[in-house]
Amino acid sequence: MAAPKKNGMQTVWFQNPPVIISTASVVGPREGEGPLAKTFDHVINDPYYGENTWEKAEQRMMNDAVKKALQKASLQEKDIDFMLAGDLLDQIMVSNIAARTAAMPYLGLYGACSTMYEGLALGAMLVDGGFADKVLVGASSHYNTAERQFRFPTEMGTQRPMTAQWTVTGAGVAILAREGTGPVITHATIGKAIDMGQSDAQDMGATMAPAAADTITRHFLDTARSPDYYDMVVTGDLGVYGKRLAELLIKKSGYDLSGRFTDCGILIYNKAHDVHAGGSGCGCSAVVTCGYLMGQLKSGSCKRFIGVGTGALLSPCSVQQGETIPGIGHAVVIEARG
Amino acid sequence: MAAPKKNGMQTVWFQNPPVIISTASVVGPREGEGPLAKTFDHVINDPYYGENTWEKAEQRMMNDAVKKALQKASLQEKDIDFMLAGDLLDQIMVSNIAARTAAMPYLGLYGACSTMYEGLALGAMLVDGGFADKVLVGASSHYNTAERQFRFPTEMGTQRPMTAQWTVTGAGVAILAREGTGPVITHATIGKAIDMGQSDAQDMGATMAPAAADTITRHFLDTARSPDYYDMVVTGDLGVYGKRLAELLIKKSGYDLSGRFTDCGILIYNKAHDVHAGGSGCGCSAVVTCGYLMGQLKSGSCKRFIGVGTGALLSPCSVQQGETIPGIGHAVVIEARG
Repeated sequence: MAAPKKNGMQTVWFQNPPVIISTASVVGPREGEGPLAKTFDHVINDPYYGENTWEKAEQRMMNDAVKKALQKASLQEKDIDFMLAGDLLDQIMVSNIAARTAAMPYLGLYGACSTMYEGLALGAMLVDGGFADKVLVGASSHYNTAERQFRFPTEMGTQRPMTAQWTVTGAGVAILAREGTGPVITHATIGKAIDMGQSDAQDMGATMAPAAADTITRHFLDTARSPDYYDMVVTGDLGVYGKRLAELLIKKSGYDLSGRFTDCGILIYNKAHDVHAGGSGCGCSAVVTCGYLMGQLKSGSCKRFIGVGTGALLSPCSVQQGETIPGIGHAVVIEARG
Repeated sequence: MAAPKKNGMQTVWFQNPPVIISTASVVGPREGEGPLAKTFDHVINDPYYGENTWEKAEQRMMNDAVKKALQKASLQEKDIDFMLAGDLLDQIMVSNIAARTAAMPYLGLYGACSTMYEGLALGAMLVDGGFADKVLVGASSHYNTAERQFRFPTEMGTQRPMTAQWTVTGAGVAILAREGTGPVITHATIGKAIDMGQSDAQDMGATMAPAAADTITRHFLDTARSPDYYDMVVTGDLGVYGKRLAELLIKKSGYDLSGRFTDCGILIYNKAHDVHAGGSGCGCSAVVTCGYLMGQLKSGSCKRFIGVGTGALLSPCSVQQGETIPGIGHAVVIEARG
């Protein structure tokens, strides 16, 4: 059960921190050529992954990640109390189909690219609150499904501005448990939808940076911790420009992240990939967290990090109707146990 | 904190049942002519509600419902720990914009038309688990926004089969609290995504009935209760044919719901409305629960009901790609206190 949360705080403390007993990640060909390639469980060699549509390929990746995470923990589908999942497709169809396949009690989430961290935060609350022994959390995205849904037919080869990001093809799954071996989730800070009036759908970094900065600052205020308490502060997919902006905003609030601030969207690709500002998509923070970051904790290179899933809350329809774009950031503290 | 949940169960028990301290409902003109008209807080007189698009009208309804629910409980936005909300629009844009307006820590949900009950279940867990004092839960839909997104331009006047349902224009909001006056949530049963191979997007009742039946049967098994424990069993939006099907399936499992089974989608319209199988949409169970059902508890006509939000997990893209449609049902037990 949580420590009593004071009114107005956005951070919850876990009294019996839920354990991440297993994670799995499946990524696309491009992600499999990147600097984090070795940290992923499986690299698919073709964006269709043997299916006849990209959407079905993304579903297959999510199914694979679920199976792999269960297998690593020697668990079966029936051992999971709740599945929390989401993705970028309209009506989160990847997660719906994965939930049908897995046949677990299912709660669908939508937090744009923050979904993995929304799931980790909620999943940890369900476990620590005594409602579940084991919760499976998943999120996915696919370059080709996202591109044609949110932007243009990929066949058009539309030119992308330098602030644009490249949607990660990947699915990440984590299993949280009341007991077991693995890193633990000690805190979660739930973000607000923050809108600074940005309306350029090709510059998601600028949209999400103020939300990420707000959540990170709130976390430090709520916990009375300073950045040096963490080995790393890792945002989901701010990209090169968004990260710079967030760092500046956080500095203005009195917290200096220098030397410990990084971003999953920057980590996942090589310069040669020419993805402009970096990676994005629900799959970005999902696979980097389930692959690379878990590896860092396991190897001892990092003892404790704060991960912040970042999302841009837009739809093609909202952009067409002239809405500005709210951003959101949900933070979770993950520590190596012991 | 929850009573220990046995492995394989889908039902959670609340040890300190969260209190529904306030609800609010805003509905469209047609819903305002129906038999439940007097149970709603506000009826808008035009589907545009003074805005220039239906999407913005739906957002305004949701904003209004949030404000009204806060006002009834003499609360301000800052008193709410978490806002849990969802809707049918791609990327749940109504909820995102409402969250921006309300500026509360926000967790976006997607459970198709089951969203209100997904939110009530999760919200009750966050309160009973000790993570929040007050949680705001909301869901909305709008006939015109849903019709053009999921089906055809409304201007086409496409003929609808008799199994088709009419998306409710409405937004419902409930505030759950650790303490206060009002009905309480004692249990939640989280459903699985169940797919019997139905692929007709114009017959949602048939898609959702097996899922609703599964969740209701699981609830009776998990709690060792029989239907007569409840004054009412109320599904979200099965409609006339879906309700008949669910009742049969539940009877096959050994539980007889006769005389106590109803459906929000059947309750909300008159015959004269010619809506065919009944109402549907996230807003359907949201406004009927926040309006009519809360009124039944208040007046003493009903002491205790099990409400089951029902959803059809489809998207235009999944239907075009030949996917069959999984259904889902989440149940929540609501009792008049004392």
